[in-house]
Amino acid sequence: RKKVQIYQYVVLKWTFALLIGLSTGLVGFFNNLAVENVAGFKLLLTSNLMLHEKYYQAFAAYAGCNLVLAIVAAALCAYIAPAAAGSGIPEVKAYLNWCGCSFYFGSKYPLCKVAAGFVVGKEGPMVHTGACIANLLGQGGSRKYHLTWKWLRYFKNDRDRRDLITCGAAAGVAAAFRAPVGGVLFALEEVASWWRSALLWRTFFTTAVVAVVLRSLIEFCESGKCGLFGKGGIFGSFYNYLVDKVLRTYSIINERGPRFKIFLVVAISLLTSCCSYGLPWLVKCTPCPTGLEVECPGTGHSGNYKSFQCPPGYYNDLASLLLNTNDDVIRNLFSTGTKYEFHLSTLLICFVVIFCLGIVTYGIAIPSGLFIPVILAGASYGRLVGTLLGSFSDLDVGLFALLGAASFLGGTMRMTVSLCVILLELTNDLLILPLLMLVLLISKTVADCFNKGVYDQIVKMKGLPYMEAHAEPYMRHLVASDVVSGPLIAFSSVEKVGNIVHALKLTNHHGFPVIDEPPFSDVPELCGLALRSHLLVLLKGKIFTKQRELSGSEILQRFHAFDFAKAGSGKGLKLEDLEINEEETELYVDLHPITNTSPYAVVETMSLAKAAVLFRELGLRHMCVVPKTPGRPPIVGILTRHDFMPEHVLGLHPHLNPHM
Amino acid sequence: RKKVQIYQYVVLKWTFALLIGLSTGLVGFFNNLAVENVAGFKLLLTSNLMLHEKYYQAFAAYAGCNLVLAIVAAALCAYIAPAAAGSGIPEVKAYLNWCGCSFYFGSKYPLCKVAAGFVVGKEGPMVHTGACIANLLGQGGSRKYHLTWKWLRYFKNDRDRRDLITCGAAAGVAAAFRAPVGGVLFALEEVASWWRSALLWRTFFTTAVVAVVLRSLIEFCESGKCGLFGKGGIFGSFYNYLVDKVLRTYSIINERGPRFKIFLVVAISLLTSCCSYGLPWLVKCTPCPTGLEVECPGTGHSGNYKSFQCPPGYYNDLASLLLNTNDDVIRNLFSTGTKYEFHLSTLLICFVVIFCLGIVTYGIAIPSGLFIPVILAGASYGRLVGTLLGSFSDLDVGLFALLGAASFLGGTMRMTVSLCVILLELTNDLLILPLLMLVLLISKTVADCFNKGVYDQIVKMKGLPYMEAHAEPYMRHLVASDVVSGPLIAFSSVEKVGNIVHALKLTNHHGFPVIDEPPFSDVPELCGLALRSHLLVLLKGKIFTKQRELSGSEILQRFHAFDFAKAGSGKGLKLEDLEINEEETELYVDLHPITNTSPYAVVETMSLAKAAVLFRELGLRHMCVVPKTPGRPPIVGILTRHDFMPEHVLGLHPHLNPHM
Repeated sequence: RKKVQIYQYVVLKWTFALLIGLSTGLVGFFNNLAVENVAGFKLLLTSNLMLHEKYYQAFAAYAGCNLVLAIVAAALCAYIAPAAAGSGIPEVKAYLNWCGCSFYFGSKYPLCKVAAGFVVGKEGPMVHTGACIANLLGQGGSRKYHLTWKWLRYFKNDRDRRDLITCGAAAGVAAAFRAPVGGVLFALEEVASWWRSALLWRTFFTTAVVAVVLRSLIEFCESGKCGLFGKGGIFGSFYNYLVDKVLRTYSIINERGPRFKIFLVVAISLLTSCCSYGLPWLVKCTPCPTGLEVECPGTGHSGNYKSFQCPPGYYNDLASLLLNTNDDVIRNLFSTGTKYEFHLSTLLICFVVIFCLGIVTYGIAIPSGLFIPVILAGASYGRLVGTLLGSFSDLDVGLFALLGAASFLGGTMRMTVSLCVILLELTNDLLILPLLMLVLLISKTVADCFNKGVYDQIVKMKGLPYMEAHAEPYMRHLVASDVVSGPLIAFSSVEKVGNIVHALKLTNHHGFPVIDEPPFSDVPELCGLALRSHLLVLLKGKIFTKQRELSGSEILQRFHAFDFAKAGSGKGLKLEDLEINEEETELYVDLHPITNTSPYAVVETMSLAKAAVLFRELGLRHMCVVPKTPGRPPIVGILTRHDFMPEHVLGLHPHLNPHM
Repeated sequence: RKKVQIYQYVVLKWTFALLIGLSTGLVGFFNNLAVENVAGFKLLLTSNLMLHEKYYQAFAAYAGCNLVLAIVAAALCAYIAPAAAGSGIPEVKAYLNWCGCSFYFGSKYPLCKVAAGFVVGKEGPMVHTGACIANLLGQGGSRKYHLTWKWLRYFKNDRDRRDLITCGAAAGVAAAFRAPVGGVLFALEEVASWWRSALLWRTFFTTAVVAVVLRSLIEFCESGKCGLFGKGGIFGSFYNYLVDKVLRTYSIINERGPRFKIFLVVAISLLTSCCSYGLPWLVKCTPCPTGLEVECPGTGHSGNYKSFQCPPGYYNDLASLLLNTNDDVIRNLFSTGTKYEFHLSTLLICFVVIFCLGIVTYGIAIPSGLFIPVILAGASYGRLVGTLLGSFSDLDVGLFALLGAASFLGGTMRMTVSLCVILLELTNDLLILPLLMLVLLISKTVADCFNKGVYDQIVKMKGLPYMEAHAEPYMRHLVASDVVSGPLIAFSSVEKVGNIVHALKLTNHHGFPVIDEPPFSDVPELCGLALRSHLLVLLKGKIFTKQRELSGSEILQRFHAFDFAKAGSGKGLKLEDLEINEEETELYVDLHPITNTSPYAVVETMSLAKAAVLFRELGLRHMCVVPKTPGRPPIVGILTRHDFMPEHVLGLHPHLNPHM
């Protein structure tokens, strides 16, 4: 596809998520409204009749209302849309397991929802409704009503449609319970059989839209206040960029040995002490507000309102932020109803200092986390913005601090659902959930335009072979045999001990293909894969034969299954532990008992992208590549994680490099 | 493995999860304590010196403390455990991507955590600590200290160890932030590359343990109050059993046509009306409590304190529960501080009625959900227990109602994390989180002993081909070719139109293998897989040739990619839409352009269990089975979802049936 088409596709995907959220939210809202009104009318009528002591009429009215509603619902279901009966959740669940059954996700269904007076819940129907809306959108409207658009053709495949329906199901739960995070988790835990990180984010977006629609938080965001936090994303990605640079510098210093490491730590420690002790001298003392429950200035404990150098009755607001434990600082920044506790200049200094210190501190040779510095920087930024906007906004500055912290975290970590829940659990205030979701979404989106999440960057910088969930686009133009490199070392199924020891010495491969050769089979064929650790255990056991013959049964008697169990790191057998003398190298050993006869294998003409997906999804360590045509050796090569790394692939096929 | 070994393995798995939770919780607690004490001492010293106006000494003390702490931390890191520096999260992440790198997850690491005065957070170290504890446990202690146990050998494989480390990482976040649900989500979203439902549950268990340890909620549970809710699980699974029976009865009735459906609906509607109108007559009127903010008895609105037949100043408590909207009933039952609002007998009647009505109502032909009836039944059960225990317990009856609802939901739905979040979002009270988690865990465990979740039961009852995440044990004894059934219909790569039309008419297969034959290749070999829908589009296009020749380029010119896009359900081409006359059946068509040349394939000797995992994980619809030895037709058969269903497999190999 061309670039513009990919762009169109991505825009469309998110537009659909938005539309599903909006429609499900509206349906949920009107559904609630209808249920409340109809049920309210029914109960009001009954109780009014009872007030006039017309008990039999009251029962007649009550049962009559119930009966009419039930018959309408049943008739709709029985004649028009039989699939609408029941909960709908099992159907959605089976569909997302790719059952390929043709369920009724049609347009008639949502009409069938009537507020019958039964002891039934609304979450099943809402989930089904959400899925139907998603399916309708995915099909590009109904052909019947001439609502097909040409650019919807990108969605005519199974995967996209199932993704949309997952979003719809999550939106249904979110609308039924006003529980957006719960909706995402419901889709994850109960409904979907496959799950990708990207889907988590899109579901989160959809339920955020539902939450916003439902709680009508639009008035909060009218004056563009939420938009400001998008900048948090920029700061977050800027933070990542700086952390990356600083870490690269540090790694040069740290390589020079422990002494330099400690020197660096001492330098940073002194810098931190100077900043946090020196800077509070710059600000003026503030008089304590009256009517406080806590002591001011607080001296004996580590808390709010530090006295520092100030006379009694005054406090130093910068010292409360810098010369304090992290937890107390966060508590101070998030505290509500204390609008004038911190000056504008104080917050600005605090933000700059914490931002810079956080960046230079991470990466020195002590254990450290990233959350707290990022939360601190984000909270001071948010409180700064909140104080600046104080005159235009009704929101509390403490709330602004929380949203600022959320935007920084979203920009740095690029997590959505888990951050949302962690922040909620930290602050114990569920009412700000929709705002929090919006801010996280905005900051993640903004930051994603610049670079990757901070953990991914560190993983990459450390050179760890991390496999992405998706295959790189250029892999589609390659086949599996294109990336097979190096000479292949294979063993015969009954192999000479010397050959095995030599191969183990020569390479550090973890898996070796085992080939059945005549006389054990008619033509050479792939028997399976033997692991290095198992080979070592087998050689240690020294059950060798003089002739080329099968001794598998003897081996099985001598070993137990747990002899081959994986040892702890650094505790397994090593090649040096073997004591194979000259004579023994000429003997034979039967590899059949330790060979895994069902290794995952792909044909050499398999697309590399598909092979990568298989490798990643199943969590393999080795994958055999077998030839397509007979008459050649029965194995072409073995692919490992390193063969799928972009550096290796692009090294072999430099013309595919998109940056050249 | 024998049964006793499997049992041992499961017990061990959960014991480890428990131990990880306990240790990480304790480490987190002492860590917090140490940080608070050291930092508190440091700040106290500084501010005391400042009070005496010894400013330089104050700075010296402050900077000195920082420096000493920093040097201790750095020295530990630099000389003893270099891997302990930094956040630790990227390392854990890369390890769980199966990078197979040998990270330092050793025993020395947790010692390296010192409360240095830097701007660093504790979540990175806590995550690393959790992972280390998990790894140590998984390795069966350190061999150095002679702590190896024989029965730990089951854990000597990669998968179990990675599962443990995932649990450890989640426990770390839970301990750092006291955010148990956030910890689970963090492990899911950021850390783990593979995720199974079972792992979600175990992570949840671990973080629940951490939460309980941290909040020291043990005193709440001392008198065995939490244990009572295990019975909710029994009720929940009993509910599932009854729903299953009732649904089977209903499906017989419903099959007789729409009229019977509506009759059933009318009957149930009348029954519901009678119950909810008739039963409140049985209870006595209760005098209104004094000092209420709401109107009592409430008449004009649908809310609390229904007057029903009672004189002014009195209310009927059963009517408040039965003759009300569902939302109001839930609100009434969950309401706190209203201990004497409902009588014991009222709650008992309410529980029985709602339990029975809920069961008979689900499955009639109207849209319905399961959550609300289950919540209602559970809440009345919980409030009943709460009222019974009123004299022994300090907990509010509203809280008991919530826990009862949670236990019923956990028993019916078998979800943990999502239910937890949904209930939290419903009640907006985060402080009950640890209790809620415990109750959900107990009820799910109890219910799992009896049957499967209600949605799974409905999916199975409806006969939908749902693939479980794990392969059945007996599949290990079979290979892929054992379940291939029926004659294979394959096309040549340039095939006669008549043959294709005949094959499409004869079968309803969705995929057909395409075989390259001479003269297009030397020997017959598998070219790929052609889909039924694509074949239909191709035939509709009528680009046929008289001779057996390649016409692929012409076909590619005539068709666009979106002609083959998947149509909406019921909108694709059908066989009847084709108009192929007698002459055309003798012509040839080139199938190369529509053949997927990289179908996922397995060798016929591949273990069926492994093939099933591949099929499920990649979400395939067709899987080719290729022969192991050359000289035979290049494809043995095609496996679809139905071939992996237990009924099919056990039908072919009845001797494997475990129930015979």
